[in-house]
Amino acid sequence: MKLVSFRSSAQALAFGAVIGDEVAVLGGDGDARWGSLRALLERGGIAAAEAAIAGAPRVPLAGLHYAPVIPDTDMIFCVGLNYAKHIAEMGREMPQYAALFPRTGRSQIGHGEPMVLPRVSTQLDYEGELAFVIGTGGRYIREEDALSHVAGYSCYNDGSLRDFQRHTHQFLPGKNFWGTGAFGPWLVTPDEFGDVASHGVTTRLNGQVMQQAGFDDFLFTVPHLIAYISSFTELKPGDVVITGTPGGVGTARKPPVYMKPGDVVEVEIDGIGVLRNTVVSEADVTVPGVA
Amino acid sequence: MKLVSFRSSAQALAFGAVIGDEVAVLGGDGDARWGSLRALLERGGIAAAEAAIAGAPRVPLAGLHYAPVIPDTDMIFCVGLNYAKHIAEMGREMPQYAALFPRTGRSQIGHGEPMVLPRVSTQLDYEGELAFVIGTGGRYIREEDALSHVAGYSCYNDGSLRDFQRHTHQFLPGKNFWGTGAFGPWLVTPDEFGDVASHGVTTRLNGQVMQQAGFDDFLFTVPHLIAYISSFTELKPGDVVITGTPGGVGTARKPPVYMKPGDVVEVEIDGIGVLRNTVVSEADVTVPGVA
Repeated sequence: MKLVSFRSSAQALAFGAVIGDEVAVLGGDGDARWGSLRALLERGGIAAAEAAIAGAPRVPLAGLHYAPVIPDTDMIFCVGLNYAKHIAEMGREMPQYAALFPRTGRSQIGHGEPMVLPRVSTQLDYEGELAFVIGTGGRYIREEDALSHVAGYSCYNDGSLRDFQRHTHQFLPGKNFWGTGAFGPWLVTPDEFGDVASHGVTTRLNGQVMQQAGFDDFLFTVPHLIAYISSFTELKPGDVVITGTPGGVGTARKPPVYMKPGDVVEVEIDGIGVLRNTVVSEADVTVPGVA
Repeated sequence: MKLVSFRSSAQALAFGAVIGDEVAVLGGDGDARWGSLRALLERGGIAAAEAAIAGAPRVPLAGLHYAPVIPDTDMIFCVGLNYAKHIAEMGREMPQYAALFPRTGRSQIGHGEPMVLPRVSTQLDYEGELAFVIGTGGRYIREEDALSHVAGYSCYNDGSLRDFQRHTHQFLPGKNFWGTGAFGPWLVTPDEFGDVASHGVTTRLNGQVMQQAGFDDFLFTVPHLIAYISSFTELKPGDVVITGTPGGVGTARKPPVYMKPGDVVEVEIDGIGVLRNTVVSEADVTVPGVA
């Protein structure tokens, strides 16, 4: 099953299941049962969604205004270096632990929504990644039990402002700009996605392949990441983990490649689909919170 | 005015204004108007709280089961090195930017609640800090306007597991253990707190002073931090910023001092009060999410 979050109006979010060329609408803002996909994961889960599809109203998939898969996520755990070949080719030591930094839900955009180049930086870079979403929470989850806690998989573009990322040793500022975390187009459940290691990610900028790698190269697997994160915090339904990006990022190229207004960036994962966003200047969009 | 969050039952949270030896209860779980102190800040703010005090039911302050000041905060931005004298005495270069790392709301405890030594580490350390809470949100807030966005100030103990903090260059894991972020006892509004630079923090472990510093030594002031954070994200009501800790942490002592079950740790800020917590072993508390 594919689950998608979308904007039912300028102010309102909804979500549903993709059935052919339609979406069976399962809930949304103001719905007492499931106000969001996160609420579905908290109360009912995938099985409840399946049971609700038959009686659900339908909207066409074509023309859908996609939202981030989990717009109201409480926490996005982002993984740093995670591709063994890329680490080796950079001559770096294999890390013993996953480097984890945060992204807040408020930095996110959906498939097709503009990725925003802010007025305070020119160093917007792409990072194509596999995201997974927690369905069943827990603490001290064992690696051997971990996959049963996953609700599904999606594409993520961890858009990064490299100068802000390097202001200090902590990545938070460069990874949390409004309008930079692209998440979509939808969540693919594990039964449909199958073995993670048999898939891979490709990132294209204006049609040119910039990153390409298989998930069989993960240094820290999905079960390992779940076990590690749940060793310090309780994982909750709707938490998101993005699993790191392979080589080929713009900032490491000579000369560096940064994205500019009009650029089209795509993150494709076989078995999920294509997450596509066009870069816009902040001057051309309405920025929330600006006085 | 002092605003306090507390546990009205094992499952429910409430909040109110401290009036002498009582709390005027202004809202809580299930309250349609203000379900939490964060909701008050989102809808009404301090002025609305003042207006509601007269008609509010009262409970005694004595025996109150304190909760974290903002239990449901969306984001806690934590500042690294921020005391100029401490940086100088360590022989380190003055940083140009504030190092920011995250803490999630789910890691927090209130005044008087146990601080938890987890089973996977022995390196629990204290960090006494000034916290401030955003009342009015915004993006690209100017330093000269920033103080009008502050709802109030409180004490924070940024309890840190030093081994997990040092697993990689990113601090997230060591700063997000469940039961380690102490926040309280209450929020003191700016009119009552006055000039930040005229106050200071003292951290005591079992009665012995371990840290002591004045906020006139801040390298990054409250207005500067608000301007910097709002340059990349929209600050929202109920967001929390903790402003960094001065010298004297346990991990930097020779030999290192780590906290053990039974230890009493206090963070005192003049004009706010004392945040006191006792360390307990994880084995002696109920840990959420453990199967």
